[in-house]
Parts: sequence; C-alpha cells; structure tokens
Amino acid sequence: MRILILGGDGYLGWSTALHLSASGYDVVIVDNFWKRNTLRELNRPDLFQVEPIETRIDVWRTHSGKSIDLRVGDVCDQSFLSSVVREFVPDAIVHYAEQPSAPYSMLGYTEAEYTLRNNLLSTLSLVYAVRDEAPETHIIKLGTMGEYGTPNIPIEEGFLEIEHKGRKDKFLFPRQGGSLYHTTKIQDTDLLYFYVRNWGLRATDLMQGPVYGFETIESAFDSKLATFFCYDDLFGTVLNRFLVQAVVGQPLTVFGKGLQTRGYLNIVDTVQCIRLAIENPSCDGELRVFNQFTETLTVNQIAELVRSAGKALGLKVSIDHLENPRLEKEEHFYQVENTNLLDLGLDPKLLSENVVITMLQKVMVQASNIRPHIIMPTAQWTK
Amino acid sequence: MRILILGGDGYLGWSTALHLSASGYDVVIVDNFWKRNTLRELNRPDLFQVEPIETRIDVWRTHSGKSIDLRVGDVCDQSFLSSVVREFVPDAIVHYAEQPSAPYSMLGYTEAEYTLRNNLLSTLSLVYAVRDEAPETHIIKLGTMGEYGTPNIPIEEGFLEIEHKGRKDKFLFPRQGGSLYHTTKIQDTDLLYFYVRNWGLRATDLMQGPVYGFETIESAFDSKLATFFCYDDLFGTVLNRFLVQAVVGQPLTVFGKGLQTRGYLNIVDTVQCIRLAIENPSCDGELRVFNQFTETLTVNQIAELVRSAGKALGLKVSIDHLENPRLEKEEHFYQVENTNLLDLGLDPKLLSENVVITMLQKVMVQASNIRPHIIMPTAQWTK
Repeated sequence: MRILILGGDGYLGWSTALHLSASGYDVVIVDNFWKRNTLRELNRPDLFQVEPIETRIDVWRTHSGKSIDLRVGDVCDQSFLSSVVREFVPDAIVHYAEQPSAPYSMLGYTEAEYTLRNNLLSTLSLVYAVRDEAPETHIIKLGTMGEYGTPNIPIEEGFLEIEHKGRKDKFLFPRQGGSLYHTTKIQDTDLLYFYVRNWGLRATDLMQGPVYGFETIESAFDSKLATFFCYDDLFGTVLNRFLVQAVVGQPLTVFGKGLQTRGYLNIVDTVQCIRLAIENPSCDGELRVFNQFTETLTVNQIAELVRSAGKALGLKVSIDHLENPRLEKEEHFYQVENTNLLDLGLDPKLLSENVVITMLQKVMVQASNIRPHIIMPTAQWTK
Repeated sequence: MRILILGGDGYLGWSTALHLSASGYDVVIVDNFWKRNTLRELNRPDLFQVEPIETRIDVWRTHSGKSIDLRVGDVCDQSFLSSVVREFVPDAIVHYAEQPSAPYSMLGYTEAEYTLRNNLLSTLSLVYAVRDEAPETHIIKLGTMGEYGTPNIPIEEGFLEIEHKGRKDKFLFPRQGGSLYHTTKIQDTDLLYFYVRNWGLRATDLMQGPVYGFETIESAFDSKLATFFCYDDLFGTVLNRFLVQAVVGQPLTVFGKGLQTRGYLNIVDTVQCIRLAIENPSCDGELRVFNQFTETLTVNQIAELVRSAGKALGLKVSIDHLENPRLEKEEHFYQVENTNLLDLGLDPKLLSENVVITMLQKVMVQASNIRPHIIMPTAQWTK
C-alpha cells in the first residue's frame, strides 16, 4: 500500500511516516517546512535538535533498509499537490498539513489569517487532487476533539440523531470551538463532508485529543530520528510543558482552576490509530469519524502525576494556578464516546506514573537545552 | 446613525444603500467591483445596463439631496478595511461582500478557492476591524437559508435546544450545505459566532432565502439607479431566470422534479429586513439569527405563477424539467420558523400573479437586451 503524508516533517507526521514505513507501507511525505521555519522565526526551538528531514530519511534508510520519499511544496498549491497525487496514486493520504496551535491562531490578525487560509485551502486542494487524480484514495484528515468543545450533553463519535417536534434526522455532532484554530477544524470537517457527499469520496476524520510524548518504537532506534518536542507557549501541549517545567524547577502552570477535562493520548497511540484507519478504510461517499483519545483527564490530574513522578526522581515540583489566558469553561460536564478505534484493535498505552517517569528521564538528559522563558503564555484570548 | 455597507455596489448592497439613505442614515459603501468585473469577464451581462457606481451615487444625490460615500477596496485587505472603519466609526456594518453564487462555487477549483478564501477572510478581516476600531458596532452579516439544507426536522431560527441521554444544551441549529458556496456560509457563521463569544461583539446573522425582483421604492425614481438583475446560470436566482425565459419564449427550466421547497422574499423585503435589524441591534456578545424569507414555495409553484402571469400578458409559457445539475433532494420535508423579523415589524410583500405581471412587464421592456444563451446551467455538481 502507498501512503502519502501531508505535513510529514511535523511532530506527528514524521512519527507516522516512520511507523507506516516500519509496517511495510510505501511512504511519501510532503512538507513545506512551515512549522520548522516558524519555530525558528519565533525563537521557540524544540527540545531535541531535530535533524533536517533529509538526514532523518537517510538515518531511517540505514537502520531499516526502507525508503521514505520526500516532495517539498505547499499543499495549498493545487497544481503541485495534484502532480504528487498523480505520480504516486496513493491508497491513503494522511492530512497533517494544518496549522495546529490554538494560541498561535489567537496571536493576532496575521496568524489568524494564516491559520484560516492554510487549514481550509489545504483541504480544498486535497479534495480536488483526489477527485481528479485518484478518486479511490482514502482521505484521513486530522480533526480535533476540541471541535466538540465542552457541551452539556454526552459527546458521540461524529454524528448525532436528533429528535425534534416528533421528527428525526442525523447530523454532524454539534460543534463549538474554543479558539480560531478549533473553529477552522470545525469548518474543515464541514468542507470535507460536503465534498465526500457530493463526489462520493471516502474519508475518515480523526477527532484527536491533545497528544503527549515524543518517542515511538521506530524513533527510539537513533536520536537522529527524533521528532519535534515543543514545550513552548504556542506549540507545546500541556503534559509536554509540565515535563519541562518539572525538570527546570519552574512551577507547573495550570490555567485557572485546572478542572478542564480533555481526552488525551500518547504519540505511540496516535501512530497506531492512523495505521488502523488505513487498514480499515471507509466506504465510497462515507465520512467516518473516530474520536481519537485513550482516556480523559483534568489538567490538575496531569499536574499531580508529574509532581509525583518528579518526586520519585528527586525533583521538587510545585504547581501554580495562573489566570487563564483562554476563554474556556474551567469546570464542566465531559462524557465522550471513543469505541470506534478500540473496536478496530487500538491497544492504548495509558498515562501512569511510570510513563511520566520515563519521559521525565529523557527530558532531564536534555535539561541544558531547555529555554524556560518560552513557556509562559503570550497569546491572550480576550483583548 | 452611520451605516457601512460592504459590497455596496452589488444587487442587494446597492438597493440597501438607497433604502437606508432614503431612511435618513449616513451611508458609506465599500466595493472592489468583483461582481461587476466577473459578470463582464464571464460574458454574463445583467438585464439593465447598470450605471457605474459613481453615476448612481450622483443620480441619487440629485433626486434625494442625500450623499452616499464610496470607498473602493477589497474587504479582505485588513488594513484598508480597518482604516475605513476607523475613519467612519459606523453604528452598523452590513456585510454583503461575499461571493453569492452556488453554481459559480461549483465551476472548478479556481472558483471554489476564490469563494472559500473571499467569504471567510472577508469576515475575519471585518471582526478584527470592529474589535480594533469600533467594538460597539453592530455587525449584520448575510447568511443563507441554504445553511440549514433540507433536514427532516423543523428548522428553528438559528439555535436548537438538544436533549440527549437526559441532558440538555443549546447549539447552533444543525447545518448542511448543498454547494461549496453554502458550505462557506456555514463556516462563516461559525467564524463570526466564535469571535462574538470571544470578544463580546454584537452581531446579527440573516439567513436569507433566494431573493427575487429588482425594483425598490428608491430605485424606481430613475432608471439610472437600477441594480443588477442577473438571470444567467451562475448569478441568476430562479424566479428572475423564469421571468426572462417567459419573455424570450424559452421554456422555464425546472431542475428535476421541481418539488424543491425554499423560503423566498422580494428585494423590497430584503432592504426592509436590513433596516429592522439595524433599528433593533443585538446585545454585546450576542449572535442573533433571523430567518429572512416571507413564504415557502416549490420551484413548480413559481413556474406555474410565471406561466399564468405570462398568459395574462399574452405570452405563451411552457415548462421543461431538466436533469438536475445539482445534488439535492427533489422531494423533502420543509418547515421553517421565521417569526423574528415579523415580530420586529416586517410587512411582507408576498408573491402573487400581479407581482409577477408587474415584473414581467418591466422585463419585456428590456427584451432586446436578453441573451438567451447564458441561461442554461453550465456548472455540474457531480463530476
């Protein structure tokens, strides 16, 4: 099987490329290095000095004997993307080529404009490439659990049957985003769903929760295979930030009450989920939705886990509650369905003190690279 | 009161500008003439040779003694729009500056890309201009009844309380578009709603049905005040198309069964609705939704009205059922709430044989300008 990974140089894109290559797939990745360049421009280096993509591909070939091909370009450039799809005719395309940060999308107009334009036009470019060059290709798009927000009703997987005034119909589950980024992901689902219905494309939308961790089975072969590990205010996710704060002796920064509950997953489960979606494609004209997380946790629970794991390693970890830079409910109902991926065979690696200890140990090795001043939030939701 | 009309050179934008100016408002219009230029480039002239905007403004000043100001530029150019809002500090902004055609958005990638980019970035540009330059301004955005699609449950005005597994919450009414254009309007509502919640802006989203007619009380003063009247396959709406077909002796082209039901309104009611929304602004942090139509009709009913009105004028009108170029339900449940604008005082001018006769008479005067070859559909929904 041939798999095209859009955004294959990124945090999850590269990890997915390695996992699929190791699993015997022919992998081509597309990237324009926006993330890499933006991290450099914003002076927010990741923890590991990530090697250039060409080096990582070479190192992987040496270790595994397997090739990963690279096409450099912008997914929003429709003629470029169509030419790649025409040449490779992939069985599946994994679309990671979106601006993935909520705080980045809230910095100002320039960043909002980029996020909106890139996230929607990349998907539009993709559906046209698939329709014109490889209409049987399975589109696997990354959504986010944040599309649902925190409604006061249980969250189903993608769709909801609604009864109203004695009549029934089935709709996309109601969605309400907590940032411009999340809003673009809602819009993106609507966009993909329209073309799936209209042209009979096959697609899977993965509503992913925040991902933590950095090492996968494949990247562990060699430090030169490392993926991005962001802990900064813009691109870092919460657990990654806490790990770094614990190591440098900065209090863990919980936003507000810390009772915000989300569905989380380990990066090793992300790559598993993508493979499961590829191995079990959706049908023609079907948009299938999976809620992609393995457990729900509050921010306080994550902070406590890092504190106790740190203690086991002799680190003195304190917890600070910051004024919340985001506009979000800090105490809310949260009950979410996530059986679709489990039914396909997902074997979750849940968060435990031992998992956190292992991650902390790897972060401690990189302690001298940590830049504590890039951790505190700069983007404010309200003016 | 000061009113800024984005897209003020267009079919509804100009008619609204005249009506608000006549009602005593200070009106500034913004336009980049995209619609005017696109009609020319695509060889789809409107029925009346619409005068340049400068001429129309001059003629209006002569007749009414009132000035309408013009700023030429692209609403997506954020610094331009912000400078206009900073200078004028409007009490309300009416956002008509979107690509309004479903068939145009389905022509191909170029047109889809333009529609998606323009319709979303114009709204993003607008919310930033309002936040930064005039945060009390009431944003009045044009949505479309097509955002709701044709669900199997009654359509409420904007929001729906959903009960699920014993719990309740209120959401935007479920929406599912029948074209890329309609999808961008759904996305646009989500975009505006996010910023309204986040920054406490005040906004009204008008879910408008297809508009028919061309003359308003104000434009009737002088033929040089005429607005666009499109009857072509891309920008013409159904009744306008039928009127022209009746006059040139072309069969009225009903798509498919003709049982597609929609909420329609006369252009004289559109301008009334906008004025009512301005006179009754929404509150800070509120997105208010009005379903803006006055009656629901099937395509067959409209065709029959044109046939009988044509007969009264001695025209021999036949009706043809074409293979439907769109992907849509041709027979469906349709029950829609529209009390909000009626409660504010909307006095509907319903469609009747007499109304159609009056319109037909005006079209007959222009018979020599009609280009019959631009009427038949060119955009196909499925490949």
